Formats: sequence, C-alpha cells, structure tokens
Amino acid sequence: MNLSDFILDFLVKKKVKKVFLITGGAISFVVDAFSRNKKISYICAAHEQAAAMMADAYSRMGPNFSATMVTSGPGATNLLTGIACSWFDSIPSIHICGQVNSTDLGSSHKSTQNVRQVGFQETDIVSMAKPITKMAYQLKNPEEIKFVLEKAYHVANSGRPGPVLIDVPMDFQRKIINPKKLKTFKIIDKKLNQNSIKIKIAKICGLLKKSKRPTIIVGGGIRYSKTTQDLISLTKKLKIPIVTTWSGLDSISHDHLNYIGSIGVYGSRAANFVIQNSDFILCLGSRLDTRVTGGVPRNFARNAIISAVDIDSYELNKNRGLKIDIKLNLDLKIFFNIFKNYFNNFNIIKKDWINQSLIWKKKYPIILQSYRDQKKYVNPYVFMEKLSNNLNKNEIIIADDGAHLTWAIQGMKILKNQRLFSAFGNSPMGYAFPASIGASIALNKKRIICIDGDGSIQMNIQEFHTMVSNKLPIKIFIMNNNGYGIIKQFQELYLEKRFEATGKGVSNPNFKKISNAFGINYTEIKKNSDIEKKIKKVLKSKKPEFINILVNPNQKIIPKLSFGDPIEDLSPKIGREEFYKNMIVKPINKKKEIIESN
Amino acid sequence: MNLSDFILDFLVKKKVKKVFLITGGAISFVVDAFSRNKKISYICAAHEQAAAMMADAYSRMGPNFSATMVTSGPGATNLLTGIACSWFDSIPSIHICGQVNSTDLGSSHKSTQNVRQVGFQETDIVSMAKPITKMAYQLKNPEEIKFVLEKAYHVANSGRPGPVLIDVPMDFQRKIINPKKLKTFKIIDKKLNQNSIKIKIAKICGLLKKSKRPTIIVGGGIRYSKTTQDLISLTKKLKIPIVTTWSGLDSISHDHLNYIGSIGVYGSRAANFVIQNSDFILCLGSRLDTRVTGGVPRNFARNAIISAVDIDSYELNKNRGLKIDIKLNLDLKIFFNIFKNYFNNFNIIKKDWINQSLIWKKKYPIILQSYRDQKKYVNPYVFMEKLSNNLNKNEIIIADDGAHLTWAIQGMKILKNQRLFSAFGNSPMGYAFPASIGASIALNKKRIICIDGDGSIQMNIQEFHTMVSNKLPIKIFIMNNNGYGIIKQFQELYLEKRFEATGKGVSNPNFKKISNAFGINYTEIKKNSDIEKKIKKVLKSKKPEFINILVNPNQKIIPKLSFGDPIEDLSPKIGREEFYKNMIVKPINKKKEIIESN
Repeated sequence: MNLSDFILDFLVKKKVKKVFLITGGAISFVVDAFSRNKKISYICAAHEQAAAMMADAYSRMGPNFSATMVTSGPGATNLLTGIACSWFDSIPSIHICGQVNSTDLGSSHKSTQNVRQVGFQETDIVSMAKPITKMAYQLKNPEEIKFVLEKAYHVANSGRPGPVLIDVPMDFQRKIINPKKLKTFKIIDKKLNQNSIKIKIAKICGLLKKSKRPTIIVGGGIRYSKTTQDLISLTKKLKIPIVTTWSGLDSISHDHLNYIGSIGVYGSRAANFVIQNSDFILCLGSRLDTRVTGGVPRNFARNAIISAVDIDSYELNKNRGLKIDIKLNLDLKIFFNIFKNYFNNFNIIKKDWINQSLIWKKKYPIILQSYRDQKKYVNPYVFMEKLSNNLNKNEIIIADDGAHLTWAIQGMKILKNQRLFSAFGNSPMGYAFPASIGASIALNKKRIICIDGDGSIQMNIQEFHTMVSNKLPIKIFIMNNNGYGIIKQFQELYLEKRFEATGKGVSNPNFKKISNAFGINYTEIKKNSDIEKKIKKVLKSKKPEFINILVNPNQKIIPKLSFGDPIEDLSPKIGREEFYKNMIVKPINKKKEIIESN
Repeated sequence: MNLSDFILDFLVKKKVKKVFLITGGAISFVVDAFSRNKKISYICAAHEQAAAMMADAYSRMGPNFSATMVTSGPGATNLLTGIACSWFDSIPSIHICGQVNSTDLGSSHKSTQNVRQVGFQETDIVSMAKPITKMAYQLKNPEEIKFVLEKAYHVANSGRPGPVLIDVPMDFQRKIINPKKLKTFKIIDKKLNQNSIKIKIAKICGLLKKSKRPTIIVGGGIRYSKTTQDLISLTKKLKIPIVTTWSGLDSISHDHLNYIGSIGVYGSRAANFVIQNSDFILCLGSRLDTRVTGGVPRNFARNAIISAVDIDSYELNKNRGLKIDIKLNLDLKIFFNIFKNYFNNFNIIKKDWINQSLIWKKKYPIILQSYRDQKKYVNPYVFMEKLSNNLNKNEIIIADDGAHLTWAIQGMKILKNQRLFSAFGNSPMGYAFPASIGASIALNKKRIICIDGDGSIQMNIQEFHTMVSNKLPIKIFIMNNNGYGIIKQFQELYLEKRFEATGKGVSNPNFKKISNAFGINYTEIKKNSDIEKKIKKVLKSKKPEFINILVNPNQKIIPKLSFGDPIEDLSPKIGREEFYKNMIVKPINKKKEIIESN
C-alpha cells in the first residue's frame, strides 16, 4: 500500500463517496490510486474552481462530505475562490493538492527559500490558502500522513466547520507505507463549563417569559449543527415570531404559523418591523453581519436584549456597535439539549405580538398585484412565486449571487424538506451552477433547481459539458436582465446612471445557441402569462434544461435598504405616518424626519 | 478630483491604455472614473482569471503595461492564477482590487481581527497574493495613494519585474483628494560596484577566448530586459553556438547561423549535445530550472565553466547541484553596455565547434520523414512546421500548457520579430486564449495565433464572446488528442496505462457546435495532406477562427527526457555507439551502460 492508497482508504472510512478533480502531473499518483479502490470514485470537472464549488455543495447536502484533488500550481490556485465559499459559510471540505517532489521544493534548501520557483509548477499554496482555511498544511514526511489526515478531518468538522487543505509532494504520494506504524491524531475534548451555561440558559428563559415582544432569529448555524428538528420542537413550546437570515432561510418551513420572513438589507418589511420592535431576541447561529443588521449595527434591534448562541466566540465578541447581552459560545446541539429541560416545563405564548407580526406580514407582501399585471417582460417576483408553487416537497434550489438571488429569497416560499442556498458569505458569481452539479451528484443525480444570472452563468459555463456527460437533470433558470443588474441598480442610485462596465462594454452571448451546442434544451420565457406553462414543461423533462427568463433590464430589487437607514425603513419608503404607526419602539430621527417631510 | 480619478490619471501617465476588468460593488467608484477620463479605456472580461491573463500578455507585448480592476472577495481571488503567470515569468502588471469600506474591515477593530468575515465579500486578498506578487498592499488612508501607486509601479518594473496588487477600500475610492498635497515616492538607486563587475566581465572575456567549446544560453531575461538588439550585436562578434531556453526561444531568430535549438527536458538533441559538450557557458537571463537542467542539476553542462548574468541574485545563488562559477547579478542592459567595450575589440570565432554543432543540428532534426508520411491523423510536428511556414514576419504565437506547447516549441521555426510564448513558469491550462485577447488588444486588434489543447481551451471558454464582441481575429488552433495528452504519456510510462481521469472520466464537448454558437468559424484538419490548404484558408480570413486538429490520441512528445537521465540522452534513446561518439566530454555511466547493453 502506498501513501496514495492510504489517502483513499481514509476518505472511504470517512464516507467520502465522490471526489471532484482534475488530474495533472503532480497529483497523478493519488489519482492513480482510484484504479485500486472501488469504494470511492471521482467526477472530472473542467476547471478546478468549479470542482471546489461542487465539493462545497456536496458537503452541504450531507450526510457525507467531499474532497477535491488537483495538481500543483495553477491547479491549486484555481481552487481558492471555491474554498472561500466553504470558509465563509462554515462548510467542511478537504482539498488535496499535489506538490512538486519534496526535494524540488524551494523551501527544502536554504539557498532557494527566496527563489520564486524551483520545482515545475511549484506554488506556495499553503500560504495562499491559510486566510481561507481552518488548516492548510504541507506534508513534511510520508509517516505523518495518518496524523495529518485525521487532524484535518477533525478540524474541518469540529467547532465552526470549514475547509482544510493538504499539500502532498509527489515523491511522498508513491511511498510505500505501513499503516500500522503511523502516528495517530488524538482528539482532546474541550471541557465545557456546564454551570455557567446553565446559568445563562436560565437567564434566557427568564427573559423570554418576561418579555413582551420576543423573537427568534434563525441563522445558518441551525443547518450546520444539524438541529433543524430541535428548532421545530422548540417552536412548539415557544410561540413567538420567527425570522431568518439568508443562511437560516431553509431551516424553517415558510408555512410555519409563526414564520414572518427574512430580515436585513433585502429583508421583508414585516420581518424587519418585527426585529426592530422586539424587546428580546434569541439569535441561533447567526453572525449578525451587516447584511442582516444594516450598515449601522447599533440601530439593529436597538430596544431589545439580545441573546445569541454561536459556536464561534469571535463572532459573539465583535464590538462594532451591536452589543450582544447574553453570549453563549456553544454548539447549538448542546444548547438545545440543555434548553429542552427548561422549555419542556412551560409554554410561552405571546399572542398579541404574534398577531401584530402576522398583520405586518399580510400588510406588506413582497409580491404586489401590479407585478402580476405586468405585461412586458417577466416579473421576477411573480416568477419566483410560480416556480415555488411547482416544486417538489424535497426540492433543492441553489441560487447564484446577484439580483436573482435576492429575488429568489424574497419571492420564494421554502417548505419543510426543501433547500434554498447560495454561497452567501463569499458570494462569487458562478457558484450556483457547479454547486448544482455537486448537489445532484451527492443525491444520486437528483433534479436541482439552479437560479442564476446572465452574467454569473458564464463564469463556469465550461461545466455545461460535465452536467451533460454525467446526465444530471439540472434546471438552469437564468434571470436575464442583460448585464450586472445589481450593480446597475447601484449605479442608478449613486452614480447618476453612468453604467460603466454594466450597460456599457458588456453584452451576452447567444444562450440559445450555446445551450443547444452543449446538448441542453433551451426555453425562453418572455412574459408573465407564459411562466406557468413553461415551468411545468421544463420540470417534467428528465434532462438538463436552460431557461432564459427575460426580465426588464431596469428591474429593481424591492424592497432594499438605502445606505445609512435602519432596517425597518426599507426603500421605497412607506408613508411616514404609516411607518411611525408600525414602530412600537422609538424610531430614529422621528422629529427631524417629520420636519423635513412638512 | 476623487481618489478614483487620481488612480486613472496615474495609469494614463504611465501609459496604461487599457484596463481589463469586471465591475462589482466594491470597485464601482474606480470603474466610474472611466466616465470622466477619455485617455484610458477598458475591456470587460467574463471571468477575472482571464482578465489577469489578458493583462499579462498585454504587458508582454509592450511597450506599455497593463492593469486589472476587480471587486473584493471572489473578484480578487479569481485573479490569482493569472497573477501567478506574471510572477513566475517576471512580467510587470498592476492589479487594483476593490475592498469593503475601511470601517467594515475585520482588521480595523481589535474585536474583529479573528472573525472570518466582517464586511460583505471581505477577503484578505493581500495575504493571499503576497506569495505571488512583488508587493501586495491595502491602502491605509486616502492620502497615501500617490506614494503607493508610484512605489507599486516602480517595484513592478524595476529589478526582476513582476506583478503588484493594491487593495483599495470603497470609502477611499470616492474621497476627494488634492494631488498637490500627496506624499511622493522617491526612488533610491542602488549603487553598483562597477569595479567588481568589470573584473568579472574581463574574466568572462578571457575564458571565452581560451575555451574550445563555448556556448551562449539565451533565457527569458533577454526579452524582459529589452536587450534583443544587444544580443544580435554580440552574436556578430562572438561566433559560437547559441541555444535557448523556452523563455528565450523568441529572442533569437531561428534562422540565425549559429542558432542550434532549445535545450532541456523537451529540448532538441542537437542543442542538448552542444550544452553537454561545452567547456564554457555564458548564460544570459535564465534561471536554469530543472526543465532546462534535467532532474539532476549536477549533470547539466558538467564539464563547463558556467558564467551567468541574472537580475535576481537568489537565482544565481541556488545551490542544488548546479554550481555557477561566475555570478553576475546585473541588469542585462547594463551588462551589454559594459561588455560591448570588450567585444568591440575582438572577434571570437570557434569554427570547428560551430561546425560540429551544426552537424548535430542537421543529423537530429525534430521532424522526421516518417512524420510527413503519416496517413491517419495530423502529425503535430508536421503541422507546426507548415504553420510556421505560413506565418507573417511579425506574427505573435501564444501557446498554452500541455503536449501542444511542446510540439509548438519543438516544431516551429521562430524568426526575427515573431514571438512565441506561454506562461512558462506557472503553466496553467487556459492561459493562451485570454492571453491572445490581451495581446491582440495591445496591438490594435492584430491577428494572434493561439495554439491550445482540447482540455485547456475549456478553462476560459467563456471569453469566446469577449473575442467575438471585440472583433479580434484570433486563430485558435486546437491540437486535439482527446484528453490530457501529456498526462496520458506519463501514465503510459509510469502507471502501466491506467488512464484515470484522462482516458477515463473525461470527454470533450462538440467544439464545432460550440464555436458556431459563439459566432466563430470552425475548421477541422484530419490528416497531413489537408494542413497546408486549411491553414491558408483560416489565415486569410479576418475573423476569429477555431481550428480543430485531430491528432492521434497516443501521439507522443519526441524527444523527451526520462527521469534521472542527463539531458544529452533524450528518449527514445539513440544507439549507444552513436551516442558515445557524440560525447566529446566523458559521459555518465559509460562503463555500466555498455555492460548492460551487451
């Protein structure tokens, strides 16, 4: 058994079933080991960037997690944008990079440490990957392979999860090793201060009871800690409004009685009114970043006592204007286990507050009648609603980054067992499509709904062939606003409609011809009245489908927070009188605004 | 004038005419400045990776150098593979990345320094780019912009050139600044030890005279230091064999009387015999890496006194088996200026040695008659010869990485004023095509010959539309061996033909349909007898052309060094008797080999 065989054996033990890869000189021996191991196989991507995104989505689907393998130099650097997706969104994944022979490494000799390159395609990928991985390590000798793999696996999956990278010199890859003689990594469990945790949880319970307008914020941590079931149990006892962040969006069914909507810069008005009028917040697994809090964090939930549970103590201790009053640095799984003991003994029902929240929800729907009446172009919100209505119970929806992501999140209704996600933190253009491939592979070639933009789909268009040759029934819905719509909206607002590098200098290729050239069916949706029929047609097909949805190039994201405003005051702004009526707590600048508006 | 206007003004002053970019939130204000500056414009790429490669090739074309502009996070990380091309090949380029507002930076507060991400799409690109740039810097305040730009420009272009990256927080981009009040960067010239240089040069001259078999190695440094004319003057005085590395290949006309060929692992037999039989070497601007020396550097030119001129002292002082006897750490421009004084006074003519070298050149041609007689498939060497014969005097040829690069370098004859290059050091798949776009833009939409592989072209296939919409007459010649040919050859040699992730698991899309879908003409060449006619046709056209050249999937690179052998002994090996006859100096293992062959 050589070291490469050992790597594959290890991955098999950790239930990695598929590896996303491109071969190359420096990874040849590891890839060769697949010929001797039938318990694991690989998918060849056409670009390493896409391979990393496939692995990311594969891990999100669970229960298994995924790996990539690439060659040294450009093979490895091509991974970085994809690895960053896993890093910012707390997704475990393992990336194995080939490296030049250990004797050819610049770092192996004193005289070559400052030389730009010694071995062929040598690049210091470990330093480059460090800022976006939990562990990036170059194997120092073949004997430490077991220790390093075990450690990397543990690090990737424990605490706040994330990606790891192991750089394996080529000469080590073919070294014969004796697995029994290899050093093992020992996991040392961190001791928890049970007492302090119990005190804090008791405090949270007391405040929940006492509060008049408490709210639960559901963040991505629920999904990552595998506690969606615990959350549902909690909501049976704790009848208070539930709002989500984008990452938490698919952790609670949108037809849950107490679900109000998602909060933040692109949130629903109702959910934002709820959060801003709350007097107590239980935040579960959200880092409360500025897309959630708005640009001025101190204005977020400014009349509430905020309690937060987060596995990452750094997130809890950020001090940028938003103060978390009760900080619980804990795995949500453990939190729910302890918390259960408390909430089993009581029901907390805040009826008036729920009712008020539901009134807002009804009063401020995302989709307006005028959208439905739109004659020219497809209205993206109407489209999202209709798409939602036509999906299966366990549908997987993956959205890219840009206006279409916001439309999807604002307009879709995600039910129990459905998923909707994007690479929220890193937000690269081009994630959704390779991620759809990774997700489909994870789920035995299941159908995936890919919601993408006309700009972003081009970023990984080379993988069209990967989809077709693997026969994956991915439905690519392009919200085509002919240019980078979200930037155009920015230019319109802040740059007097100078559409540099959006309206000007950018054009789209012929998507119909390109889809057909790759052997993908093509459908165009030009107006609202066509949506239903065409969605049904493409969903019925068992094949890859490209659906080009013509959206008004000037279509806006509605609502959206303007710079500097508190999140309850989304633009386009509602009438001041109505606005103030919705504010139970003191609004900001009320006096000033009334003077200005008179 | 805001800071963004200042950046553009600075670039204009430095004669940057084109910027390759993709816009995005965090770079919006810089991109907006183009609306107010008519002396500089931009090309929109479809992927930032391609933008960096376009900028790289634009700089290679000179005389001006180029820049990219991208948004924070994925926009910036997407650049890295392209930046690495400039780093390893000593190409100056400047990369301007947008970053989140300075107040949103994780590093701006003590409490957030360990948080994965604070601002939206915040990524620590400076740390990630450090290993592959001469300078990577995040602007600390708007007032230092002039200093930082001037320093970055100087650093990129001085000493051994290379890329630089400046990270500009969004709030700084729109700051109003007074250019007159800004701090300036002062260049401090390094004092040279003229005396020591003169002593070394005198020594080189003495040894040149005394030696019997001296050889000049031309490296990439000749081109980068703009001394191709000086080299030509030198060769008029110094009549000794000239060999080149890959990077030096297009610095000397291949019809030069004393030009023998390129050396190294994929070198010509003749050039390798020359170098291995030399007793004195003058190496001009080559780092003598292992692709040149072979895997065992001590066997390279082992009977020669080696003198080398290199701008990078680290390269001269590598101590990996190959000892450089006379090290001249100097800009080649200065070297030639001083050296001129010496060689003006003498002619060095080593007639016997030149004749012997030319005998080898004639005896071991790359292209054999059997290649020409090949009936099925196109022989790539025959193709390269015919392509060469049909090119213009000032043709630009850009090759990608893989078997086709080797075939091009071995098979083409590059004349004065022609260029042939690749991203030699970084060697990413996917370089040649975006580089062809960058080169064409640099030269007023000039025709470019792009030599690519069926695997590598897919890596940046999204830029087909960039080429078409900018009406660039790029001729894409695909040496199609249906899979990653160079890896297949490796698997055949060392892995018993287990074609994991090459023959198995990989297939090509329909290039004809895809080319046509993008509006590119498509031509197929299936056999040798079609080459001439079809090359003439596509070169006559003023449009982008995709030429799919069907090469035997088992086509080898011939000759090629086997692991461990000295470079004079390329495989397939020539008869031992003949081989030893060619070795004027003592061969390695002669006795052992003769015993073995008996």
